[in-house]
Amino acid sequence: MIVLGIDPGLATVGYGILEQSGGTMRAVAYDCIRTSGKGKETGERLEEIFCGIDALISTYHPSWIAVEKLFFSRNVTSAMAVSEVRGVILLAAQRHHVPVREYTPNQIKMAVTGSGKADKRQMQEMIRRLLKLPAIPKPDDVADGLSIALCHLHVLREP
Amino acid sequence: MIVLGIDPGLATVGYGILEQSGGTMRAVAYDCIRTSGKGKETGERLEEIFCGIDALISTYHPSWIAVEKLFFSRNVTSAMAVSEVRGVILLAAQRHHVPVREYTPNQIKMAVTGSGKADKRQMQEMIRRLLKLPAIPKPDDVADGLSIALCHLHVLREP
Repeated sequence: MIVLGIDPGLATVGYGILEQSGGTMRAVAYDCIRTSGKGKETGERLEEIFCGIDALISTYHPSWIAVEKLFFSRNVTSAMAVSEVRGVILLAAQRHHVPVREYTPNQIKMAVTGSGKADKRQMQEMIRRLLKLPAIPKPDDVADGLSIALCHLHVLREP
Repeated sequence: MIVLGIDPGLATVGYGILEQSGGTMRAVAYDCIRTSGKGKETGERLEEIFCGIDALISTYHPSWIAVEKLFFSRNVTSAMAVSEVRGVILLAAQRHHVPVREYTPNQIKMAVTGSGKADKRQMQEMIRRLLKLPAIPKPDDVADGLSIALCHLHVLREP
């Protein structure tokens, strides 16, 4: 089974694609979609993200898409910009009939490290270890994308 | 020139299409796109809205799309849901290469009534009068869609 995990943002959308087969989990691909704000309207950047996610779904045929759920406590302006990005991601998933699940940062930390108090560095180190990666993926958004996919696989395995 | 004004919302997207020709302004169409939350994921509702806006652009070929800009002070959960809707509206506009302009509730009130303090009822009555409509359009979101389109035409006329 393939899961696409997505960490949404207007400038950087981190993603991680994990495959679970029997007892084995492996990272199939992980990277980010970057959009530049220079001389571009928001609509252009949203279209780049939509096309990027659309291409990932067409290439990897995920059974699930897992997306980070926003914190209410965050900066409202930034929350609104990220929500616009979430809108086009949910649309891309829907167009391919791929079900979406959402997880809070706390659920993701719990799934990856067993603690809701883990810091970013600890999360990244666990992701590197669990997925047997040669190094911690950069930028942070990529590791976040992988964490979200891993969280969903963890939830699916729970009784 | 045709302007499509949109009042975004997950359950109801109000819209108004105005045509300005010489000194005359007329309402070409005004209605709303409704999506039901019953047994539906957000992605399905966003897709319905995307397809609805896409169809409006294909039918009426607007030169501009005007959308209400969100208040920061509003409820954050609702602001995030409306932002997801805005995301797919901006995407639909971009796919058709129609430029988008955004206006705050205050700018819209100023354009329609000459005062930022106008209440909803006064706004609706002015919309009915200015566009020579037989009655105030219902629900409120439809009158809001028309107000936003009217605001953009007003801004274009200003020296």
